Amino acid sequence: MPWKAIGIFDSGVGGLTVLKEIVKALPQEDTIYFGDTARVPYGTKSPETVTRYSLEIASFLVKRDIKLLVVACNTASAASLDVLQKKLPIPVIGVIEPGARRAVAVTRSGKVGVIGTAGTIRSSAYAKAIKRLNPEVEVITRACPLFVPLAEEGWTDNEVARLTAHAYLDGLREEGVDTLVLGCTHYPLLKKVIGETVGDGVKLVDSAEETARTVAEILRAKAMTRPSSEQGNHHYYVTDIPAGFIRVGNRFLGGRLGDVYQVSIDGEKG
Amino acid sequence: MPWKAIGIFDSGVGGLTVLKEIVKALPQEDTIYFGDTARVPYGTKSPETVTRYSLEIASFLVKRDIKLLVVACNTASAASLDVLQKKLPIPVIGVIEPGARRAVAVTRSGKVGVIGTAGTIRSSAYAKAIKRLNPEVEVITRACPLFVPLAEEGWTDNEVARLTAHAYLDGLREEGVDTLVLGCTHYPLLKKVIGETVGDGVKLVDSAEETARTVAEILRAKAMTRPSSEQGNHHYYVTDIPAGFIRVGNRFLGGRLGDVYQVSIDGEKG
Repeated sequence: MPWKAIGIFDSGVGGLTVLKEIVKALPQEDTIYFGDTARVPYGTKSPETVTRYSLEIASFLVKRDIKLLVVACNTASAASLDVLQKKLPIPVIGVIEPGARRAVAVTRSGKVGVIGTAGTIRSSAYAKAIKRLNPEVEVITRACPLFVPLAEEGWTDNEVARLTAHAYLDGLREEGVDTLVLGCTHYPLLKKVIGETVGDGVKLVDSAEETARTVAEILRAKAMTRPSSEQGNHHYYVTDIPAGFIRVGNRFLGGRLGDVYQVSIDGEKG
Repeated sequence: MPWKAIGIFDSGVGGLTVLKEIVKALPQEDTIYFGDTARVPYGTKSPETVTRYSLEIASFLVKRDIKLLVVACNTASAASLDVLQKKLPIPVIGVIEPGARRAVAVTRSGKVGVIGTAGTIRSSAYAKAIKRLNPEVEVITRACPLFVPLAEEGWTDNEVARLTAHAYLDGLREEGVDTLVLGCTHYPLLKKVIGETVGDGVKLVDSAEETARTVAEILRAKAMTRPSSEQGNHHYYVTDIPAGFIRVGNRFLGGRLGDVYQVSIDGEKG
């Protein structure tokens, strides 16, 4: 069992920020990443549709013998984590719970900001998760639709990124948040600009980092990690032509993306 | 036959700029707009997949008795216009040919710029269409991935839009283009900023306007227009929850979007 891989999926390329943190935390582990690039984005689709897609992908990955599944997609975590945890015989980790837990632990003012895509913010998934942990914490949310295309374009440290960050975030700072959850897997790429915009007084919570920490804790607790002398291998599957995934993925991982395979999962039993 | 509606489809909300110009040119006509919002974007999908989707949508619209079909999507125009024109018993108009024809007519320097999404630019559809009309014209292209999210966010006249336009367009101006094709249905919303960025010396070609002009010409030539005393009705179909389409669509049409219906076309025979 320890020798099996960690499965990670996202609607597209964004979950690679989670993969990157997992590899940093557990370099000895094999990973299999699945990006549903033919059907991206999930944020505009109904929860039922997203759950159907998630089950299809989970089925594909479980057949490839994984020991743990990471739902590295905020929309899929919000829509389908419960169903996946019930249906699968392995641990399933989403990205929302770890970020929410960290935010609750970190805040001193009791005011937490959450930024994400329009879909994630509309779902209130982070607000609900934070309130479940501590109903006293006030959650102030803001959708930042331009951050994803900025990250994919590689404009993460220029004047456009800075102006955009001010337009989205100045209001949050004025409302007195002392903690800001990066509630979208793309946002860690904009961490520097976001941090400079909100200032030192606001602590950033990176869901990708927190998720990787949770994965490492669970595998260690179950004695399911590989020996730390090992060096993991990394495989990538996508559902549409890989060109765009490779280009953007290399930007996300700093040019270290390996081989990417295109597969079809139409009709895969969820 | 004249009393039938004009059918228009796009992968999402962008084609509404084409609808708007058609309504301006032919206010007496009924229209049926189809936005495939569950499967947007098309730009990252293979031509085979886009052609299959286009045939499904065309079949749906033809059953609702249309007299002419407008493919108000650059990706679908590039991938499937030929097939649709062969298969359907009614005229089918794409957005690429009208824009290309106008650019060739307008340029004096013989240097035409084309901007569009990464998918449209990669397909070389405009460059090929322009070269077919006049092989002497030099075509210089530039993908502008941030323009679509800027238009959808409504940031069409702020500092972020201006800086982004300069980053994308200054190079084109320096290369000496005197004509610039807005090769994406979203871009007419950024026309003001784009025009100010490239300056008076560069003539903008709005594919939406040119397509509407072509539609009017064809219907008039076939005596298929309704009497000009009439006032058209406008219906909208989308494949995912309509909320986002309604919000962005009202921005595109200036708040005059009518009722929007969600439909499923899974399994629709193409």
